[in-house]
Amino acid sequence: MSMHCFKDDYSETAHPDIIAELMRSCDGHHTGYGEDEYCLEAARLIRREIKLEDCDVHFLSGGTQTNLTAISSFLRPFQAAMAPAHGHILVHEAAAIEATGHKILSFPSPDGKLTPERIDASLRQHLGDEHMPYPKLVYVSDSTETGTVYNKAELTALSRYCREHGLYLYLDGARLGAALAAPKSDLTMADIAALTDAFYIGGTKNGAMLGEALVIKNPELRTEFRRNLKLRGAMLAKGWILGVQFCALFRDGLFYRLGKNATDMALALSERLAALGVEFTSPVESNMLFPVFRCEVTDELRRRFIMHPGKRVDEEHSSPRLVCSWATTPEAVDEFASAVRELI
Amino acid sequence: MSMHCFKDDYSETAHPDIIAELMRSCDGHHTGYGEDEYCLEAARLIRREIKLEDCDVHFLSGGTQTNLTAISSFLRPFQAAMAPAHGHILVHEAAAIEATGHKILSFPSPDGKLTPERIDASLRQHLGDEHMPYPKLVYVSDSTETGTVYNKAELTALSRYCREHGLYLYLDGARLGAALAAPKSDLTMADIAALTDAFYIGGTKNGAMLGEALVIKNPELRTEFRRNLKLRGAMLAKGWILGVQFCALFRDGLFYRLGKNATDMALALSERLAALGVEFTSPVESNMLFPVFRCEVTDELRRRFIMHPGKRVDEEHSSPRLVCSWATTPEAVDEFASAVRELI
Amino acid sequence: MSMHCFKDDYSETAHPDIIAELMRSCDGHHTGYGEDEYCLEAARLIRREIKLEDCDVHFLSGGTQTNLTAISSFLRPFQAAMAPAHGHILVHEAAAIEATGHKILSFPSPDGKLTPERIDASLRQHLGDEHMPYPKLVYVSDSTETGTVYNKAELTALSRYCREHGLYLYLDGARLGAALAAPKSDLTMADIAALTDAFYIGGTKNGAMLGEALVIKNPELRTEFRRNLKLRGAMLAKGWILGVQFCALFRDGLFYRLGKNATDMALALSERLAALGVEFTSPVESNMLFPVFRCEVTDELRRRFIMHPGKRVDEEHSSPRLVCSWATTPEAVDEFASAVRELI
Amino acid sequence: MSMHCFKDDYSETAHPDIIAELMRSCDGHHTGYGEDEYCLEAARLIRREIKLEDCDVHFLSGGTQTNLTAISSFLRPFQAAMAPAHGHILVHEAAAIEATGHKILSFPSPDGKLTPERIDASLRQHLGDEHMPYPKLVYVSDSTETGTVYNKAELTALSRYCREHGLYLYLDGARLGAALAAPKSDLTMADIAALTDAFYIGGTKNGAMLGEALVIKNPELRTEFRRNLKLRGAMLAKGWILGVQFCALFRDGLFYRLGKNATDMALALSERLAALGVEFTSPVESNMLFPVFRCEVTDELRRRFIMHPGKRVDEEHSSPRLVCSWATTPEAVDEFASAVRELI
Repeated sequence: MSMHCFKDDYSETAHPDIIAELMRSCDGHHTGYGEDEYCLEAARLIRREIKLEDCDVHFLSGGTQTNLTAISSFLRPFQAAMAPAHGHILVHEAAAIEATGHKILSFPSPDGKLTPERIDASLRQHLGDEHMPYPKLVYVSDSTETGTVYNKAELTALSRYCREHGLYLYLDGARLGAALAAPKSDLTMADIAALTDAFYIGGTKNGAMLGEALVIKNPELRTEFRRNLKLRGAMLAKGWILGVQFCALFRDGLFYRLGKNATDMALALSERLAALGVEFTSPVESNMLFPVFRCEVTDELRRRFIMHPGKRVDEEHSSPRLVCSWATTPEAVDEFASAVRELI
Repeated sequence: MSMHCFKDDYSETAHPDIIAELMRSCDGHHTGYGEDEYCLEAARLIRREIKLEDCDVHFLSGGTQTNLTAISSFLRPFQAAMAPAHGHILVHEAAAIEATGHKILSFPSPDGKLTPERIDASLRQHLGDEHMPYPKLVYVSDSTETGTVYNKAELTALSRYCREHGLYLYLDGARLGAALAAPKSDLTMADIAALTDAFYIGGTKNGAMLGEALVIKNPELRTEFRRNLKLRGAMLAKGWILGVQFCALFRDGLFYRLGKNATDMALALSERLAALGVEFTSPVESNMLFPVFRCEVTDELRRRFIMHPGKRVDEEHSSPRLVCSWATTPEAVDEFASAVRELI
Repeated sequence: MSMHCFKDDYSETAHPDIIAELMRSCDGHHTGYGEDEYCLEAARLIRREIKLEDCDVHFLSGGTQTNLTAISSFLRPFQAAMAPAHGHILVHEAAAIEATGHKILSFPSPDGKLTPERIDASLRQHLGDEHMPYPKLVYVSDSTETGTVYNKAELTALSRYCREHGLYLYLDGARLGAALAAPKSDLTMADIAALTDAFYIGGTKNGAMLGEALVIKNPELRTEFRRNLKLRGAMLAKGWILGVQFCALFRDGLFYRLGKNATDMALALSERLAALGVEFTSPVESNMLFPVFRCEVTDELRRRFIMHPGKRVDEEHSSPRLVCSWATTPEAVDEFASAVRELI
Repeated sequence: MSMHCFKDDYSETAHPDIIAELMRSCDGHHTGYGEDEYCLEAARLIRREIKLEDCDVHFLSGGTQTNLTAISSFLRPFQAAMAPAHGHILVHEAAAIEATGHKILSFPSPDGKLTPERIDASLRQHLGDEHMPYPKLVYVSDSTETGTVYNKAELTALSRYCREHGLYLYLDGARLGAALAAPKSDLTMADIAALTDAFYIGGTKNGAMLGEALVIKNPELRTEFRRNLKLRGAMLAKGWILGVQFCALFRDGLFYRLGKNATDMALALSERLAALGVEFTSPVESNMLFPVFRCEVTDELRRRFIMHPGKRVDEEHSSPRLVCSWATTPEAVDEFASAVRELI
C-alpha cells in the first residue's frame, strides 16, 4: 500500500527497533507465563520511569483485555464503574465490562474528561440508595476519545476527590504516549502513577506489535492478580514477547519519541488545516483530529488517503477522525494538507 | 542457556520460518482486528486442510482464552460442560470457564479420554433432574493431558454419541500437531473437523510465538462470534500477527513437520529409556513422557537438563513430565538417554 | 398505624381474599418447587385470561428476581437489552441485569415509553458495529415509572418493529393491574400476550403478599426455563404459596378489581388536586401522581400522611410521588385533597 | 391427602403458630424491603439466641438463593469454594454458584462432612499454583446431605483450620433445627455463630412457609450486603413476611421444638426398623433415614406412604430417603414401622 494512512494508530505494523529487539530475543529458552527475564527487565524499566518501586507491573495483549481484567478484579459484585459518556469501555468494547458483571455509569462530558463536579451529585445519589449500584471506580482515559488531554491540575483534583470518597481512579493509557507529548499536558508518567490507583501504558497504539503494561499501585488491588490474568485468558504462555517490546520502548525513551511524533504530526496537520480555514469539532491536543469538511471533500480525501469516513455533521458536512501515529511522516502531513487546500 | 530443555513445548521461542514470515509482514499497513489479508489467507489454508468450506476460523492469542471464549459463547446459562478429570479446563485454567458462569462436570478417566460409556449414566441423571445443571458440551483434548491420543474409531464413537444426545463436541487441540503425528492416531485434521462441532489448532505449543486457530463448524455456534471475541478481550488490534504465523504453519505443511518432530523425539526417547528398563506411568503416544526414576536420579537429571521435578510416585521414586517439542534434537534425546543410563 | 399511606403500592399487607385463600391452602401436603396443584391451576387461569394455551407460566417471588431471571436466560453473552432511561432495570435494581453479564442500552424517554423512532438509529448503529454490544431485547414496563400507560396502537407498533428486527419484546408488568385499568389504555391482558415475547404480571404491587407470574410465549425462550429459575435462586420449595395467591387473583377477576381501585383512586385524587390548581410533572394515567407543591406544603403533608418526600423541582417547590393502591379508600383521597386545599 | 408423608421436610405447609402470627401481621402498613419492625425484632431474637450482637442478620426466601447470594458476595473473582462431594451447592442447585463465576472444589466425604485432613493437601496444591483457582471458602452443611451432624470438636477443629489458613467458614443450616436436636450433637446455635464466619438458619424446612435467616459475623463480609441482596433478586418488597415467621420461630423456642420433633421421630423410626433387622446406608443421626429394603418392599411402601423411590443398592435392594419433619407424628412412625414389619 502506498497511500498514507490517517485511519488509526494500529494499522501500521511495528517500529523497526521493536521488531529488531523481538528478533534478537528469539533464541534459546525463556521462562513461560510472564516470569521471564524480559518481563522482569521491562517492569524494572517502568518502575524507574514512574519513580515507584512498590507496584505491580503486568503485561497483557490488548486494551479491552486489560480494562476488563483490571476492572473486574478491582470491583466487588455490588460495585460499579463511572466513565465519561464516550469512554472506550462504555462504547467500543462490546460490553466487555458488563459481561464480567458490572454496570458502568455514564456521565455527559463534552470534552471526554471527568471532573469531580460532573460526578458528585450522581455519586451521592447512588451511595445513598441501596437499590442502585455502588460506584467505586472512576475510569478515565488520557488522551480521551476526542483527543483531549488532562493537565496536572485536572488529574490532581480528580485524584483528590477519588481518595476523599473512597473511589479507585483507573486510567486507560492506550494513547498515553501521545497524551504525554501534548503541549497542553504538564503530566509525567510518574505523575500518572502518583495520582491513580492503577493505569495502563499502551504499546499497541504506540509502535508495538501488541502489548499493554498494567501498573497497579494500590496494594488492595494487587492480591493474587496473576490469577486474574489467568482466569480471563490474559496470561500468555510466551509472555516474553510482551516484555521484550516494553524493554525496547522504555530502555532509552523510544516510547516518548514515538508518542511525540504522533502528536507533533497531528498538531502540524492541525495548524495547516486551520490556516486553510478548516474547523474542528474538538480541540486538537494530541494525535487525533476531527476536522469538518464538505462531504465531497471527505469523499475525495478517502480516495487519496487511508482514513475513516467519519460522522455526518449536517446535510453538507462530515467530520472524519484523522489519527497520526508513530509512523506518520511530515511528507504525509504535507500531502494531506495540500490535498485539502486543493479541494476546498 | 545451553542446557537441553524437556520442560514443556512453549519455552522455546518460535520456529525460524515463522519468525521470518512475521518479519516480512512488518511493512506497510494492515487492516485491524483480524480482517487483514494474512488472517483471510490463513483461514483459507485451514479450510483447505480440513476439507471444509462452511466454517468459521478465528485466531486468538492463547489456549485458555480460546477455551473460555468458545465455551462461554456456546452454552446457555443453564448448561454445563463435561470433561475428563484431568482436563486442562478443569485443572489448569484457574477456573476460567466457571468465571463465565458454567460448571464443568468431571469424569474419571485413567487415560485422559472420554467415551460414551464414561459419561452416559451421569448424562441421563443430569438431564432428568432439573435441580442439576444441564450437560450440553463435551470437552476433550487431543493429545490429552497425559499424552495419549484418540484414534478415529474412538472419536467417531464419541461424536456419534454427542449427536444422538444433542451434545456439542469441542476439541482442545493445543497439542494437535503432536497428536496427529502419533503412530497410534489414524486421524487427520479433516477427520477432526468432520467429527466435532468446534475445535482449535494450537500454534503456541507447535512453533508459533502465539496463536490458536479456532474452527467452528456447527452453524448455531457461529452467530456473531466476532462479538464474543471482542467482549472477552480476545480480538487483537493487530490481528495479522496471528494470521501470518498460521500462514507459515499451513502453507506447506510446517505445522505437521513440527508436530512430527515433537512426537518422533518423544517416542525415540521413550524407546531408549524403555530399553534401559525405565517404566512409565502413562503410555507414550505423542510428545510427552512420564518416566519413573529414583528420586536422586530425577534430581541429578534436573541439574543437567531443563525439566520439571514431577510428582512423587512413592517414597523412593518420582515421575517427571518430559516434553519434546518442535525444537527438540536427536542430540538432546541422546544426551538425556545417556545420562539416564549413567545414573541408573 | 392510622395514617393513610400514599407512599407506594407494597406497604400494605395483602388483600383479605388472598390471605383467606392462602390460609385455606395451609393443610396437608403439596408437591414442591412449583409443581403443585395451585400453581397448575393458577397457570390454567392465566392461560384462559390471556387466551393463549401455548406458553409457559412460572411464578417467582419478586420483580427484580423475575427481570434478572428472564433477561439473563433470554440473551446470549454478546447481546444487550434496550430500556427507557428511567426503566426499573436501569435505575432501581442495583445493576442486577449487568450482574448477569448484559449491558442495558438507555434511551431518552420523557414519558417513560419506548417507540420504534426512539430506538431505531441506535439499533442500526449497534447492529452494524461489532465492537458494540448487539441489542436483542426491548424492555418496557406498563405502567411506566412515571405512571403513563401504553395504548394498543403504541404497543402494536413497537411489537411489529421488534418482530421485523429480530428483537424480543419483554414487558415488566409490576403494575399491570393499574395499567390495564387506565382509561387511556385499550389493552387487554390477551393483547399484552399477543404483542410480546414474554411479560410478567405483578402480584406484589397488586394485593398479593409476594409473587409475580412470568408468561413466556416465544418457544425459543422457553427451553428448560425451570433450570434458569433454579440457578438464579428463584424456585421456591413451597411454590404453592405463589400459586394459591394467583388463583385468588384470577379465579373471578380480583386482579382487575384491585388494579382498578388503585387507578380509580389516583384519578379521583388527581381531579381533586387539579381543581385546586395543582400541577403535575407527568400526566396522571394510572395509580401514580407526581404533583408539585411548595416545599412547606409537602413537608406538612408528610406529617399527616405516609408518603415519600419526592424530588425538588426548584428552590421553592418539590414533587412527591403519590401512589394509590388496591387498599386506598375514597376517605383517604378525600382527606388528602382536603389537606391540600387547606394548605395551599 | 390422607397418606403420611416421609418424602421431605418441605411438602407440609407451615406450622399453625407461624401461620397464625403471619395472619395477625396482615394489617396496616409495613416498611418495605426488610426494614420493617418484624425483621428488626426477628434479628434481635436471633442475635439473642446466638449470643452475638455484632453481626448482620438478613432474611431471604430460600436456600439456593441464600447460598448463591452469600458465596458470590464473599468471594473475589479468582477465589473458589470447597465442599464435600455431595454438598447441596455442588449437586442440587443447578450450578447456581458457578453461574456467579466461582468454581466449587469437591472433596470425597463418606459421611458428608469436611475435616482439615480431607482438604489440606488440595488446599496447599491450589494455593501454590497460580494456574489453579484459589480456595477461600469452606462450605459445610449441618445436618449434612446424608443426615449426619457435626459435633463441637469437629466444627471447632475445622474452624481453627480455616482461621489459620485464611479461609472463610460458611455453614448451610437448611436443616439446622434437626441437626441441633441430634443426640450426637453438642453444638448450640451460639457455637455455630462463634465457629463460622457466616451461616444460615433454615426456616423453609423447619416449619416456615418460606424464609432463611443469614447471619454474617465476619465484618469484611458485611460491607453493603443489602446491595448484594438486591442485585441477586433476594430483597422482597414485603420482607416483613419473612421477619414475622422468624419472630414466631424464635420468640419462645418454637424453632427448636420443631427441629426436635423431626429428629425424634426419625430416631424413633430408626430404632423400630433396626429392631426389625433393617440396615441403613448411613448412620441415622438427625431427621433423615436411608434404610435398605428389598425393591418390592420399597415399592409397596410407596403405595402406602408419600416417599421417594430412592436409589438402587443392588439388583434386589433399594434405599429410599425417608425424611421426618416438624409435622411427623408418632402415629405416622408407627404405621410405617408396622408396614415394614408386615412386608419383610
